[in-house]
Amino acid sequence: MPDLTSTANPRVKGLARLRTRRHRDAAGVTLIEGHDELALALDAGVRPTEVYWAPDLVRDAALLERMTGARAFSVSREVFARIAYRESPDGWLAVAPAPGRPLDALVLRPDALVLVAEGVEKPGNVGAMLRSAEAFGADAVVIASADRAGTDFANPNVVRASKGTVFAVPVASASTPEVRDWLRRNGFRTVVTTPAGAGELGRTDLTGPSALVIGTEATGVTDDWLTGADATVVIPMHGTVNSLNASVAAAVVLFEAVRQRTSVS
Amino acid sequence: MPDLTSTANPRVKGLARLRTRRHRDAAGVTLIEGHDELALALDAGVRPTEVYWAPDLVRDAALLERMTGARAFSVSREVFARIAYRESPDGWLAVAPAPGRPLDALVLRPDALVLVAEGVEKPGNVGAMLRSAEAFGADAVVIASADRAGTDFANPNVVRASKGTVFAVPVASASTPEVRDWLRRNGFRTVVTTPAGAGELGRTDLTGPSALVIGTEATGVTDDWLTGADATVVIPMHGTVNSLNASVAAAVVLFEAVRQRTSVS
Repeated sequence: MPDLTSTANPRVKGLARLRTRRHRDAAGVTLIEGHDELALALDAGVRPTEVYWAPDLVRDAALLERMTGARAFSVSREVFARIAYRESPDGWLAVAPAPGRPLDALVLRPDALVLVAEGVEKPGNVGAMLRSAEAFGADAVVIASADRAGTDFANPNVVRASKGTVFAVPVASASTPEVRDWLRRNGFRTVVTTPAGAGELGRTDLTGPSALVIGTEATGVTDDWLTGADATVVIPMHGTVNSLNASVAAAVVLFEAVRQRTSVS
Repeated sequence: MPDLTSTANPRVKGLARLRTRRHRDAAGVTLIEGHDELALALDAGVRPTEVYWAPDLVRDAALLERMTGARAFSVSREVFARIAYRESPDGWLAVAPAPGRPLDALVLRPDALVLVAEGVEKPGNVGAMLRSAEAFGADAVVIASADRAGTDFANPNVVRASKGTVFAVPVASASTPEVRDWLRRNGFRTVVTTPAGAGELGRTDLTGPSALVIGTEATGVTDDWLTGADATVVIPMHGTVNSLNASVAAAVVLFEAVRQRTSVS
């Protein structure tokens, strides 16, 4: 008999409330659904506080042994259907501390490589960008957000679209003036990607401490970034549509930085 | 009074049938829905044969003037709801010749840059990859498909996810042996991207006639590509997830080729 079999249980109702940002923010938590996403988060050092698993749905319960610090509740299939947000749930859901930290809490190596994205808010885009940043070893991803509450990194759809990399790459969110001030105080060279860039991406030095700034697909970066940039660069493109998806642009600028940094001199 | 007001009209029923690949293939056509996608296709030289528009839904009927060769039918809101495949239709739907051509019909420049994707079939992935290929000016995109009918470039979801670039980049699809034979006959250097690549992408010459080969995110390229490759390259990555989305990998290899081709020597 599972621990929780009634959808009227207060714990089940509390989990359902965590679907809204307000409740997640108040509790400082996120939801991680799915075996593979949970495994990746654990690999990245995340410590869930609660785990809910449906014996009727999970294929292999071995993951439980990796969460000895979490309170574990077995739940019925009906309860899991209520707390899951996916269409085909696999029986795993955990509550964990929310990703994201204040800008000044980011720990930076010398010659750090930071990706700054302005205005990217859709969970699918944020998640895809985090995947690219993680793949190329960015030291941090900072989103300059117009939303005063900052980017919702704890949105379960961000967790999913990022394939769990939201826990593996240090992430922060703040307003554009705050981000620019932080970059200046930390000695970053700000390289802004824009179709009107003065230099070509492949001919611009990205080997020092660099903040690579990308804007949205639709409108690019705001003027504040252009006037304050140490360099503006263009990604050489030939097409007629002439705008790359934000996560694709992020991957290209990060690849170029890594290429320069690993080149034999 | 619109030309078509009944969903029982044989023309309306015929359009609904075109949602299935079998009927599209038999007619050699695709469906283009949406004002912006249709405008991009027209920019790329596509000549629709029929256009259906709902006066109750369209904001600006000027697009009609660009399709003087097409039979135009105004339709009621109800009829449009039946023929549209989007959730929020904007009142434009056209029937046009299907994109995609036989391999031997691709026209190639000297030093052509061709993107070869193996096994990429999901409309969203195919569409995103076409966007990247178009942005970086690939001469053609060839999908090596396990499906004997080839990749369904005429799938309306491919048209949409590609933002119309499926009409701007020459595309073809064939089996892996056929694609390899075609590359050999046309003197391409085959550069295969794989995590076990012998060289780094940034240090491998991509300036001659090059076929850049990428596999699926989940399983990479098949062994046939590895054994027959002129070069194997790795995209330098640092992350733990260690696989890029296929459209992101495509963008990175194409960017590097363009970078090399435009560098001052």
